[in-house]
Amino acid sequence: WHARQAVNAAATLAHCESWMERLGWLANFDRVADGTTSPDRPGWPFSDSEVYKLLEALAWESARTGDPEAETAIKRLTARVGRAQDPDGYLNTCFGHRGRPPRYSDLEGGHELYNIGHLLQAAVARLRTSGEDELVRIARRAADHVCRTFGPDGLPKICGHPEIEVGLAEFGRALGEDRYIEQARLFLDRRGHGTLGDIPLGRAYFQDDIPIRQADVWRGHAVRALYLAAAAVDVAVERGDDELLRAVERQWERSVARRTYITGGMGSRHQDEGFGEDWELPPDRAYCETCAGVASIMVSWRLYLATGDVRYTDLIERTLYNVIAASPAADGRAFFYANPLHQRAPGRPSDPDEVSPRAESGQRAAWFDVSCCPTNVARTLASLGGYLATTGDDGLQIHQYAPCDIDARLPDGRRVAVAVETRYPDGGTVRVRITADEPAPWSLALRVPAWADGATLDEDGRARPVTPGLVTIRRVFRAGEVITLELPMEPRFTWPDPRIDAVRGCVAVERGPEVLCAESHDLPRPDALDALVIDPRTPPRADSGGARVRGRVPAHRDRPWPYGPAVAPAEDGEWFDVPLRPYHSWARRGPSGMRVWLPVSGP
Amino acid sequence: WHARQAVNAAATLAHCESWMERLGWLANFDRVADGTTSPDRPGWPFSDSEVYKLLEALAWESARTGDPEAETAIKRLTARVGRAQDPDGYLNTCFGHRGRPPRYSDLEGGHELYNIGHLLQAAVARLRTSGEDELVRIARRAADHVCRTFGPDGLPKICGHPEIEVGLAEFGRALGEDRYIEQARLFLDRRGHGTLGDIPLGRAYFQDDIPIRQADVWRGHAVRALYLAAAAVDVAVERGDDELLRAVERQWERSVARRTYITGGMGSRHQDEGFGEDWELPPDRAYCETCAGVASIMVSWRLYLATGDVRYTDLIERTLYNVIAASPAADGRAFFYANPLHQRAPGRPSDPDEVSPRAESGQRAAWFDVSCCPTNVARTLASLGGYLATTGDDGLQIHQYAPCDIDARLPDGRRVAVAVETRYPDGGTVRVRITADEPAPWSLALRVPAWADGATLDEDGRARPVTPGLVTIRRVFRAGEVITLELPMEPRFTWPDPRIDAVRGCVAVERGPEVLCAESHDLPRPDALDALVIDPRTPPRADSGGARVRGRVPAHRDRPWPYGPAVAPAEDGEWFDVPLRPYHSWARRGPSGMRVWLPVSGP
Repeated sequence: WHARQAVNAAATLAHCESWMERLGWLANFDRVADGTTSPDRPGWPFSDSEVYKLLEALAWESARTGDPEAETAIKRLTARVGRAQDPDGYLNTCFGHRGRPPRYSDLEGGHELYNIGHLLQAAVARLRTSGEDELVRIARRAADHVCRTFGPDGLPKICGHPEIEVGLAEFGRALGEDRYIEQARLFLDRRGHGTLGDIPLGRAYFQDDIPIRQADVWRGHAVRALYLAAAAVDVAVERGDDELLRAVERQWERSVARRTYITGGMGSRHQDEGFGEDWELPPDRAYCETCAGVASIMVSWRLYLATGDVRYTDLIERTLYNVIAASPAADGRAFFYANPLHQRAPGRPSDPDEVSPRAESGQRAAWFDVSCCPTNVARTLASLGGYLATTGDDGLQIHQYAPCDIDARLPDGRRVAVAVETRYPDGGTVRVRITADEPAPWSLALRVPAWADGATLDEDGRARPVTPGLVTIRRVFRAGEVITLELPMEPRFTWPDPRIDAVRGCVAVERGPEVLCAESHDLPRPDALDALVIDPRTPPRADSGGARVRGRVPAHRDRPWPYGPAVAPAEDGEWFDVPLRPYHSWARRGPSGMRVWLPVSGP
Repeated sequence: WHARQAVNAAATLAHCESWMERLGWLANFDRVADGTTSPDRPGWPFSDSEVYKLLEALAWESARTGDPEAETAIKRLTARVGRAQDPDGYLNTCFGHRGRPPRYSDLEGGHELYNIGHLLQAAVARLRTSGEDELVRIARRAADHVCRTFGPDGLPKICGHPEIEVGLAEFGRALGEDRYIEQARLFLDRRGHGTLGDIPLGRAYFQDDIPIRQADVWRGHAVRALYLAAAAVDVAVERGDDELLRAVERQWERSVARRTYITGGMGSRHQDEGFGEDWELPPDRAYCETCAGVASIMVSWRLYLATGDVRYTDLIERTLYNVIAASPAADGRAFFYANPLHQRAPGRPSDPDEVSPRAESGQRAAWFDVSCCPTNVARTLASLGGYLATTGDDGLQIHQYAPCDIDARLPDGRRVAVAVETRYPDGGTVRVRITADEPAPWSLALRVPAWADGATLDEDGRARPVTPGLVTIRRVFRAGEVITLELPMEPRFTWPDPRIDAVRGCVAVERGPEVLCAESHDLPRPDALDALVIDPRTPPRADSGGARVRGRVPAHRDRPWPYGPAVAPAEDGEWFDVPLRPYHSWARRGPSGMRVWLPVSGP
């Protein structure tokens, strides 16, 4: 992850700013400031939010490394944004100014409040890392405007795309101002009653079909559903609202049990970028938007903090390695928007100098017409450190394993300081070295992932088996001591629930937290991926970060009509070793066919 | 089919006219005539075509039964359409008049030429059944305007939705006027060179990515691809253009072998209403638009007439029974737009008094926001008689089996007259009774469907086995003689090509030309359809127009995460008889879950 963070800092942040400059999304702010808005405005109504997400990424990055360029960029962008704010706090480049539609004239599709939600999240990143600055003051004026306009006595409306809720809740928490949290709660409870107009995709698209407290499962547009759920956890925690917390937990449970891909990806449908029905998980038409991965991590993180249940941090790990890590190209200048689990025909290479109109090209693209994912990846990578560990009243919990130094004080003053050394997930050894003496005992907890059957923990040369969950050691630790967690990294077969129709008769291979895949580059014929079957009786063998399985490619002949009486299973094709690689690395060698789920050869 | 034609005549035609009146789609013509057009105009740009498709249906219906009401409706509608025609022949209610965008200002999305294509097909129906009338004269002026505007020296453009091509080619053939056919050829050959602007879905969406002579498979929007192919066959036949004919045959072959559902349905994706990649045939997200079924029949019929190959009439039969027949409700006042092969959650009943914004509701709807399917079904049912049989130089070929009387003269004057008596497909006996003496020998050919292994033909009490294809008897026939074709109607298992990922490990059951399905109404629990498995070693048994198979419903318990190590296959659940019914009858007992492809129980 460190290498990915470095590429994010060195390439992605500037890449995003330069594209937004080039496309006029930044100049949109200048035009408002200069009073030169007109019916011609480049970008979608939500392009403002990209600037705010970049600001958030820059804020985390500035705090992570102290990079002065990030700080300069923050000031530069903040100044341009600030000039566009109206005296009453309203801030939007698409609505509410000369030649543009009036304020709040299209709440279903206009994204005005959504944009402000992202502004608030950017301001929270500043508050958390450097304190109140101009960006925070802009955000405060915008939040106050939202509260005045949509408060209990104001417009009883909501935004088509949830995000203002999580922004307000986080902002209120960071500032200790309850009225922002109350406004978030108000927005949450207004939704689900047909508050917005109906649309061809139905009100489930923006979760205005069922009140969040009553819903049992996520549905509709995945990013919307998940941003809303994240806000609900924030509000539930701030308010001690157990009913609301339980509702989100219940939705998480069923959605994870029945509507989530093995990669952690969410969203089965292209048409509405949405969740499908239970068990509807087609690998080829998986949408699994990168942003839905970001949003899923937001929800699970909040649920972990609220409950301490490791199932949430397990899912975060899965999503980090198999959705977030898949998106950016090695150079940090191209991104997957959709993350299918099966690519039939290799995509065409995307032009690094062109905006891709298509989210599902099968290749990473430099920028998209709807370009929400690059900045979402950027802010997630820049803030990744925050997801690695937590402290509680009695100690330290380590959730994600990456080389890092942690040095914290517990509420009562005890010092908990460790260094994590690991090549995970290339290797399964995680060494936690105590880096400070602390005379009082404290608890060190390490997450053993759900898949890690056979893990061991070694203290002072005494190894013992540990089972999935948080394994906790409570005692006095001395500087220099090393606790070693050994996670089993042998590749393994993983089978789907028999009700997932689209992958019946298939098996996947996982290694540690990584899902593996077969790529056409590694197969003998271009169409071999269509006919490949593997032998499920020969376990996968480890192979340089991936695995090999025993497979063959029967030579099917096309019948004029592909349905008919049973034919004997094709038994031809030589058995050979099929190399599998981490899913997140797919298409890095150029456009390719790819599949995660591998059909197994007959009985 | 006779009952369906009667319902079509008695209910559907008036139903369509009344909805178009109610929604203002007919008044749009009056507004043009009265000069009262404005930016407010109800309906999509292609709503004019619905009026023309209704006119076509009325024309076939009037000829079929001589119904005076149909004739009155034609005159009434023709008068309103005619008043809206500009002096130069231009005819459109969306473009080209006060308060509306200029003529041909949005060829990608405006459907102006598409609309005229349907006007021309309506006029052809009149020409074929009653001769030149006011509708034909309107059509001629419109066609002349198109030829002047888009001819060799005119605008070198095409329409985003193919249809003008098939309209012009048919119109030219019916009138014997070559210039219309030449204009159709010009449109055909202009397409495929990036003649239209690019769109987010890509130029394949409207087949402007590859010239039709070079393409190997259908791709993009299914109805567009198929209307274009129909036109290409017409032009190829009129011009003796073998290259073009071979190209369409080649595209048909691969598309039928790799991109067509067992129902004959075409179109695997909702997002673009389009064909997917080879082998991408998800049953749950099958789009299989009813209109694509109509268009597929148009293509196959033309290919049969051009080549005499029964594979085309086989596909027509399949599509008629499993797409067209599925669409209308029993009362002819509601229709399926999409025809999925697996419905997970029962749809909600649609309001017979409301326009459905959603094509894929899982229930038939009275009318749609985009309402292309009801009129397309209406014109197909009204003209169905034309698909039953053909004559050639030496005799009569019968392709589809329905009770009917056929009385025709061959080019040399021989009289071929038969009556077909059958309850097909409820029963498999087709009796062809000769109804006129003819002293000279002639050929009677009967299609034995591809699935009909074990069919027999009985002449004068002597039965003999016949194999799929056209079975031909050439001799002197006397009035009163009966030739009996016995088709085997035992239900049968049908297996998919192993490369169709989405239905791996499943089997379907067919009976005669009908695909069967399981419906939640017939199962013990609402979620039984998710877990149902059937025993593939027990052949299906016939059961009152459907079948029964041996199946059971294991009680799967949800795991928190639906992927993991192999678990022993669930062996619980009592075996019971699962009733299967014809797919075309699904959801006629109210909203239901449904599936065509049935998972088979373990090894």
